[in-house]
Amino acid sequence: MNLYEIRLSRVRTAMHEHGLDTLILTPGAAMRYLAGFSETGHERLLALIIPDDQPWLFVTPALNASQVRANPAGIGDVRVWDDAQGWQGLLREICTDLTLDIGILGLDDDMPARFSLAMQEIMPTTLLKLASPVFGPLRAVKDTSELAAMQHAADATDALIAPAYAACVPGASERDIAAAIQNTLASLGAEASFEAIVGTGANGASPHHHTGKSKLQPGDIVVLDFGARVDGYHGDITRVVAVGHASDEARRVYDIVYQAQAAAFAAVRPGASGHDIDAAARQVIANAGYGEFFIHRTGHGIGLDDHETPFIVAGNRSKLLPGNCFSIEPGIYLPGKFGVRLENIVCVTEDGTARAFNQPISPTLPILER
Amino acid sequence: MNLYEIRLSRVRTAMHEHGLDTLILTPGAAMRYLAGFSETGHERLLALIIPDDQPWLFVTPALNASQVRANPAGIGDVRVWDDAQGWQGLLREICTDLTLDIGILGLDDDMPARFSLAMQEIMPTTLLKLASPVFGPLRAVKDTSELAAMQHAADATDALIAPAYAACVPGASERDIAAAIQNTLASLGAEASFEAIVGTGANGASPHHHTGKSKLQPGDIVVLDFGARVDGYHGDITRVVAVGHASDEARRVYDIVYQAQAAAFAAVRPGASGHDIDAAARQVIANAGYGEFFIHRTGHGIGLDDHETPFIVAGNRSKLLPGNCFSIEPGIYLPGKFGVRLENIVCVTEDGTARAFNQPISPTLPILER
Repeated sequence: MNLYEIRLSRVRTAMHEHGLDTLILTPGAAMRYLAGFSETGHERLLALIIPDDQPWLFVTPALNASQVRANPAGIGDVRVWDDAQGWQGLLREICTDLTLDIGILGLDDDMPARFSLAMQEIMPTTLLKLASPVFGPLRAVKDTSELAAMQHAADATDALIAPAYAACVPGASERDIAAAIQNTLASLGAEASFEAIVGTGANGASPHHHTGKSKLQPGDIVVLDFGARVDGYHGDITRVVAVGHASDEARRVYDIVYQAQAAAFAAVRPGASGHDIDAAARQVIANAGYGEFFIHRTGHGIGLDDHETPFIVAGNRSKLLPGNCFSIEPGIYLPGKFGVRLENIVCVTEDGTARAFNQPISPTLPILER
Repeated sequence: MNLYEIRLSRVRTAMHEHGLDTLILTPGAAMRYLAGFSETGHERLLALIIPDDQPWLFVTPALNASQVRANPAGIGDVRVWDDAQGWQGLLREICTDLTLDIGILGLDDDMPARFSLAMQEIMPTTLLKLASPVFGPLRAVKDTSELAAMQHAADATDALIAPAYAACVPGASERDIAAAIQNTLASLGAEASFEAIVGTGANGASPHHHTGKSKLQPGDIVVLDFGARVDGYHGDITRVVAVGHASDEARRVYDIVYQAQAAAFAAVRPGASGHDIDAAARQVIANAGYGEFFIHRTGHGIGLDDHETPFIVAGNRSKLLPGNCFSIEPGIYLPGKFGVRLENIVCVTEDGTARAFNQPISPTLPILER
């Protein structure tokens, strides 16, 4: 069996376990995992349909048909609709022909309501559930080829660090720095995992700050959060630097976040849970008196999606398994002042230790001499 | 009333007309239209809730709270959840307190199934419908300030034409050309409307080709489809050039598509329908014997979304109104050979003529001397 046959077989086993009779996937990570292919259909329906006991098939708009027919998994049944006709009639016909309109239907977690509500209308007696219980556990355990892809994404991401630092000069805007990252990505032939977050000074205190026109000032603490995507797999790191000089408070906060990141990394092993890893980081920050300023979870799984299972968050008691890949990214955010977040991607290995995909984080706040 | 109060009032009127008791919007164009703000929450729930007869409110993850509180519409009721607690409990509480769990709920068309299915579970007696019947007609008619924003987006988009052409040299890859477009965008301080499509030679015969590593050869016909987004409003144009020289067939096909684009433009006026505009373009191409190679609709509405209502497609008999903005982009795609698509953004004006936001398209195939 090739890779895609193996994955399909595992997905079908999981469908039976979860009582799902059919899966319908719209473009995204699950489609890419199963078919080696994902093409956005935007407002047009492009879907992979997986009945539990009949061959799988694609539904595609005419203008994506050639790309869908070239799918790496070799799915040969490709049903095409055109703009004048619309997709509803074709889907209705398929559902009747294949008797998909009874039982339990598993929908792609990312499926937009414009499709999911129409599907409920086309198949009113079907119970809709999410497909993630099927895909989550399978996708969370990366195989050897996926771990290699994760390393490629991490290497391409690490290659962005030096140009990002070089762009951090007084007077440069956050957007200038994001452009330097983007240009390096383009020269590497890689894509961005997500829009780079560059937050200088007080902007860094907003974890998901929108990179804007603010200009770097001497003494600013700059949060740099970016990643490269290679062959569909995501990289994602965060580094923090000081422009020219830094306050004692900034150095102290950096040290605490660094220790929290290291403590979480040290806690990674098969059998530990996301809750445990989160607690290891959180305790360091709480002990230092900054607990209320660490306002998000410690990390998220990563792979074909930038954020996926397993989540490294309080309350997630599921045990980590070898092959799980995730971020460790504690942070301290001081409103009106600055933020510090430090992030690397790691995975759980068979021998019980953690593997870091990225270059080590500097143990002290890097002061960029300007 | 300020802009946002006016829009809210119109939305509430439309809610009553469509029998929707509550709207729940996830990040995207509808949220931006109503609140002047859209921040992606990714897998975390970030939502704007609009009851028909009570004040509106935001639900946000803690790490987006400061951005949400700064929303331009001045929505002051912002309810925050954190990662450890999750959003379901908070939403359940809100639904009970405000009695949202009865009646008909209008969901954002883009709401992912991970949220919409959970909402159905939290509010099992609620009937779910799409919110687009409320927003579609309102957003499709652009006011003066929106038309100005559309012009800004078109100007920024047009500024990308020259650098894109300059990058079309033999040996350059499709990605090199996309990078030239991206770099110009960055220097303008604008964002991309969508990932630029650069398709050279036979790749251009796939309308939504993925810009890749193919290198331009002398004699190639190159499809260039790109746009700039300014203040949330989208630009979107397509141009086609020949590298060095072109076959007679390529010149002929270009002429036909140009005539089709012009015919569709001439058909634009208040009272005409999307069907009529589509037919005007389609007839030119069919008469020339290429009907089967025009495999998509003639255009799409555009504004805060790249693709929105009104769609310029066979069967859409709704009459166009002054303020409607949309693309006119007929194409001919010859598998294994090349493609030609020509696209500008236009709007319907009060005086009954069409206004083109973009620079005129060259009436003959531009041959780039190399």
